[in-house]
Amino acid sequence: MLSKNKAKFIRSLQLRKYRQKYHKFTVEGVKIVNDLIREKLARVDLICATDTWISRYGSHIPEDIEVIPVSPKELGKVSSFKTPNEVLAVADMREGTIPVETAQEEICLYLDAIRDPGNMGTILRTADWFGVRNVFVSPDCVDIYNPKVIQSSMASIFRVNVTTLESDVLIAHSALGIYASSLEGKPLPDVIPPKSGFIVMGNESQGTSESLQNHATERIRIPGDKKLGAESLNVAVATGIILAWAG
Amino acid sequence: MLSKNKAKFIRSLQLRKYRQKYHKFTVEGVKIVNDLIREKLARVDLICATDTWISRYGSHIPEDIEVIPVSPKELGKVSSFKTPNEVLAVADMREGTIPVETAQEEICLYLDAIRDPGNMGTILRTADWFGVRNVFVSPDCVDIYNPKVIQSSMASIFRVNVTTLESDVLIAHSALGIYASSLEGKPLPDVIPPKSGFIVMGNESQGTSESLQNHATERIRIPGDKKLGAESLNVAVATGIILAWAG
Repeated sequence: MLSKNKAKFIRSLQLRKYRQKYHKFTVEGVKIVNDLIREKLARVDLICATDTWISRYGSHIPEDIEVIPVSPKELGKVSSFKTPNEVLAVADMREGTIPVETAQEEICLYLDAIRDPGNMGTILRTADWFGVRNVFVSPDCVDIYNPKVIQSSMASIFRVNVTTLESDVLIAHSALGIYASSLEGKPLPDVIPPKSGFIVMGNESQGTSESLQNHATERIRIPGDKKLGAESLNVAVATGIILAWAG
Repeated sequence: MLSKNKAKFIRSLQLRKYRQKYHKFTVEGVKIVNDLIREKLARVDLICATDTWISRYGSHIPEDIEVIPVSPKELGKVSSFKTPNEVLAVADMREGTIPVETAQEEICLYLDAIRDPGNMGTILRTADWFGVRNVFVSPDCVDIYNPKVIQSSMASIFRVNVTTLESDVLIAHSALGIYASSLEGKPLPDVIPPKSGFIVMGNESQGTSESLQNHATERIRIPGDKKLGAESLNVAVATGIILAWAG
């Protein structure tokens, strides 16, 4: 049985303001919660779950995690999703930031004003697949602890380090290498894939900001010579193609 | 002013059943509706728009299209989106199917049970970018006239031909070439990109069906050797990487 106070607390985590206040966020869905617990991807102190979930997975839960049995209706009330799930976990945000200089040794992503939570989550999942461990985000990106980001990242949000970085600071470190996606860039096959530095992906409708493009080591473009009429690619798709190119 | 009957008719188009009955569907949002009309991408007979939209674009609308001025509230009632838009158009579905043999001359996509409308729309947008004119879909794919598919395709839904095709029929034509994405396939760099045939992308959670994999000319895989832990890529991202590879 979920107390009124706890329900209110969990619901409050749907808002960035409260996530930042408590340094906690919610994770929903059987697969991602199970991954989270099994792989100890983040500290969890509370789980709300239906009897179905508890009877199937309850015995695998470490003792220091409080498991509250809830009805599907109760779960629906604290869930941020339309279709009810079986389980919701409250997890701790990770602390710590990655230094910019990491890009001296390896490829890092820099996300410039990515606003759509589905895109953000999919980009993190893609970074995970290609072994990009460090993703920097501009302060005007969507909050990575937004429930839709968590959902579409699958569990990659827990594996990739995400650090907020002002674009000015990135520009001050442009010597590390800035490869900015741009519709006016050089076609990918004409550019030698870098071994380190930043790959910059831009906002869904504006693309990469002008100041970042101006300070880029190279502006890069995904060829679309045969296109029927599309003006651009989805930014998560473009990230995948560029990371596949970067190897 | 929107009559009750017309409002009811437009709302009914949110359901596949009525879209199929009337052979019509709705298109929402300023950019996509403007593209639709300017490029004559589909036959439109009705537009509901706010005064803002009408004062800005109304003079460009051909005379045979009925334009009904609506308040934002009225528009909200017939819209399939949460956030109100300025304009909604009712368009005719395209008739006509593309023969399977088209894949003898060029690369076609075959989508096997793609269920998420956002993925479907993004895949069509990606096909458009890479000049893949013909996309075949299994009967259990999400309806391409679902409003969320239209939205995420941008206007690509109107440029790419989409034909429903049973996978059995595809298998009967496997001599045309079937390149099926599969986590157990050959890594892309080890396969010579085909000039024609079908690239098959599978369901979000199940992947490409076993029967299609068994009849594939080649099973192909996007290398993820450095991955941190991701089990797969989003299917739209994977489609982008494979189409970029196929050139």
